[in-house]
Amino acid sequence: MKPHFSLRLRVFNLNCWAWEEPAAPRLTAGPSSSDVRRVKNPSSHLLVPSVPRGIPYLSKHRADRMKRLGDFLNVESFDLALLEEVWSEQDFQYLRQKLLPTYPAAHYFRSGIIGSGLCVFSKHPIQEFTQHVYTLNGYPYMVHHGDWFSGKAVGLLVFHLSGLVLNAYVTHLHAEYNRQKDIYLAHRVAQAWELAHFIHHTSKKADMVLLCGDLNLHPKDLGFRLLKEWTGLHDAYLETQDFKGSEEGCTMVPENCYVNQQELEPFPCGIRIDYVLYKAVSGFCISCKTLKTTTGHDPHSGTPLSDHEALMATLCVRHSPPQHNPSPTHGPVERSPLISVLREACTELDLGVAQARWWATFASYVIGLGLLFLAVLSALVAEGGIREIAILLWTLSVGLVLGVGAVYLFHLQEAKGLCRARAELQHVLGRAREAQNLGPEFKPALFLEHQEGYRTEDQ
Amino acid sequence: MKPHFSLRLRVFNLNCWAWEEPAAPRLTAGPSSSDVRRVKNPSSHLLVPSVPRGIPYLSKHRADRMKRLGDFLNVESFDLALLEEVWSEQDFQYLRQKLLPTYPAAHYFRSGIIGSGLCVFSKHPIQEFTQHVYTLNGYPYMVHHGDWFSGKAVGLLVFHLSGLVLNAYVTHLHAEYNRQKDIYLAHRVAQAWELAHFIHHTSKKADMVLLCGDLNLHPKDLGFRLLKEWTGLHDAYLETQDFKGSEEGCTMVPENCYVNQQELEPFPCGIRIDYVLYKAVSGFCISCKTLKTTTGHDPHSGTPLSDHEALMATLCVRHSPPQHNPSPTHGPVERSPLISVLREACTELDLGVAQARWWATFASYVIGLGLLFLAVLSALVAEGGIREIAILLWTLSVGLVLGVGAVYLFHLQEAKGLCRARAELQHVLGRAREAQNLGPEFKPALFLEHQEGYRTEDQ
Repeated sequence: MKPHFSLRLRVFNLNCWAWEEPAAPRLTAGPSSSDVRRVKNPSSHLLVPSVPRGIPYLSKHRADRMKRLGDFLNVESFDLALLEEVWSEQDFQYLRQKLLPTYPAAHYFRSGIIGSGLCVFSKHPIQEFTQHVYTLNGYPYMVHHGDWFSGKAVGLLVFHLSGLVLNAYVTHLHAEYNRQKDIYLAHRVAQAWELAHFIHHTSKKADMVLLCGDLNLHPKDLGFRLLKEWTGLHDAYLETQDFKGSEEGCTMVPENCYVNQQELEPFPCGIRIDYVLYKAVSGFCISCKTLKTTTGHDPHSGTPLSDHEALMATLCVRHSPPQHNPSPTHGPVERSPLISVLREACTELDLGVAQARWWATFASYVIGLGLLFLAVLSALVAEGGIREIAILLWTLSVGLVLGVGAVYLFHLQEAKGLCRARAELQHVLGRAREAQNLGPEFKPALFLEHQEGYRTEDQ
Repeated sequence: MKPHFSLRLRVFNLNCWAWEEPAAPRLTAGPSSSDVRRVKNPSSHLLVPSVPRGIPYLSKHRADRMKRLGDFLNVESFDLALLEEVWSEQDFQYLRQKLLPTYPAAHYFRSGIIGSGLCVFSKHPIQEFTQHVYTLNGYPYMVHHGDWFSGKAVGLLVFHLSGLVLNAYVTHLHAEYNRQKDIYLAHRVAQAWELAHFIHHTSKKADMVLLCGDLNLHPKDLGFRLLKEWTGLHDAYLETQDFKGSEEGCTMVPENCYVNQQELEPFPCGIRIDYVLYKAVSGFCISCKTLKTTTGHDPHSGTPLSDHEALMATLCVRHSPPQHNPSPTHGPVERSPLISVLREACTELDLGVAQARWWATFASYVIGLGLLFLAVLSALVAEGGIREIAILLWTLSVGLVLGVGAVYLFHLQEAKGLCRARAELQHVLGRAREAQNLGPEFKPALFLEHQEGYRTEDQ
């Protein structure tokens, strides 16, 4: 390998959807907007003639935003553009056609009922791709939130760049609708764990790992710390040598006309929930040369491309001689943040399991009551009493029993999913503790990167 | 590495469940059986006092079978025992306690509503584990088949044995209920693909790969050929130097008193649907020294342990100098079976997608009719006509519309899942064709195992 080897990688990330405010200012093209409610997962389409179908009351500016996004991506010619919340496959197909000359490779990750919303456009050929759909992703009866219907996932794309293997991941975790009373917290922690574990198991032979996406996690949130500690990924915003963009790197800012200002009230600068994270294996080092975000406008100061800000990173991969670089998982002092965050996550999942079981038990009581009520009503009908109302109530009760039965099964499944994540966490925690107790000179098997010189033993 | 390095690995695999026939002969212990129907996924429990709870009408012999299985595993002291259809977590806990001295490590893979039924007992510490739940796994409304409720999955366990990394996978695919008219064929092919892809992406840095399980696939079935071609796994039955057991290595045989004889009528010797598959990376070779199956009785000629036969393999891992071993994915002649099987799988998934879309369309028509019917009934009720029946029908129609609405959403999701598998297959197929067109001297990126000597390039 040449000592001056270097690889430059320009990456773009954007959560594309925007629930458009009634009076979006500084509109450069397209019809005026009209709707106010904030919905996360509509399966809607574009409006302008060049783009198929659209749901006008949901997002009148989407056609214009998609067009401008396509133009911008074509002009900038990134190596990799990773997008979230592209709910409509027609939008993806429109962008695919538009970006074909600059980004010959593209993929849309299908999942759930609506779709994961994840897609990628690349200048380089995609060697392989796959995806992992999160086991837990909200509740089907929370239709107004709709995350459950989208089948949120993490997509993996494998690239071979200059002889190096790059594993690029794109993801979107469950939205946070109420930070004070977040009923989805356990699900988001479980998703962060599944994401970290998926990266851990699928990137063992990669030279570089890149994760982009809307994590719906603030930088100090449990899920984000868990992800960072277990994967060893670096945060481009914290590591970059040259940052230009919104204050504190926020990716939802009050200056953005599509952002619900009320939601951002507790955060005057905005919030940082979209990330570019990366790491290299031993023998290489990655640095983030520049990181830019949009600042509430499109990159040319027009109407924003979305309610989220775009992230644009330039990463530089260089050869670096193998060295003992104590990662957060090596040595007792460095390992303690991992143990502490694993413990915290276990506690959170314990609460989630208890809550899921409470709901399952509650549902089973309702089913019991419903069945009792049905028996009484059947007797009433048989006796020829108030028949009309009895029949109506009887059928309603059957519906209730069946509906609550489904809720019961769902929460049983939720408890199983949370128990599974907790078991994985507890196993890692156990091994981390073992390693800590044995001291830093002991290289625990869990953290032992596979060695080329194998230990020989006859059995 | 010592030139005489060798590692011996003794592996046990069994699908544990047995739906017990009314007159199970040669019973050595336990109460007499009573039931006839064949059910795949009951969430049932054990009967005898030493083991918690039980559902007597489902499997009166289960307590006895579990006890004998535990005794046998303790006596034999395998390196690894992989079990399927352990539907009850209490059964797992019972075995865990019983096997603790011989198999200090164990794990139960939780998923779905009932559970995946997969578990493992190991003499060696489990370094890591994770699981992947199959996207498609039958239909929730096919309650009598029940596969959907079990959340079928593949479990991965990472072991470090004598300095080598072993990735052991255990799985159980969707059952086949009617070979002539198999409505689950597309799902099973998609599962086989997901399994192969999961192994492909998670085993890149493993030295040895082992897959055990009940694949519900005959050796010539599309799903099995797809799995073998894409992963390069070897079939222990075909490769072993010393086989003892049932004719043609069958794992469901007519001699087994728990087997439904009618199901096996077209196959006089029985069927082979449970497998031990393995492979080693370059630098090692694995051979199967011995493979044994039970033959319709328990290993000591008593009542069988299950309706499936157990597989017992002795694998031997040896050091072997790196050589150009043309795998089925290298060179046009060798690559063609892969291309052919990928094509066949794409066709099968096409049919599956068409069927899923047909059901979704059919459901949408029923919803439309139901809504129309509701409108007419509402008018009837409002006019004070035949009110009793109208109210009854109205509520039934509401139930129908909601129920069929769920079916509609389910089939939308099914179509998305099948499209996702098809997209992955088509991508691999495209790259395999490219490679074939470029000739054997071209090492395509898709099949290029990651090289230690990187190509250097300045960008």
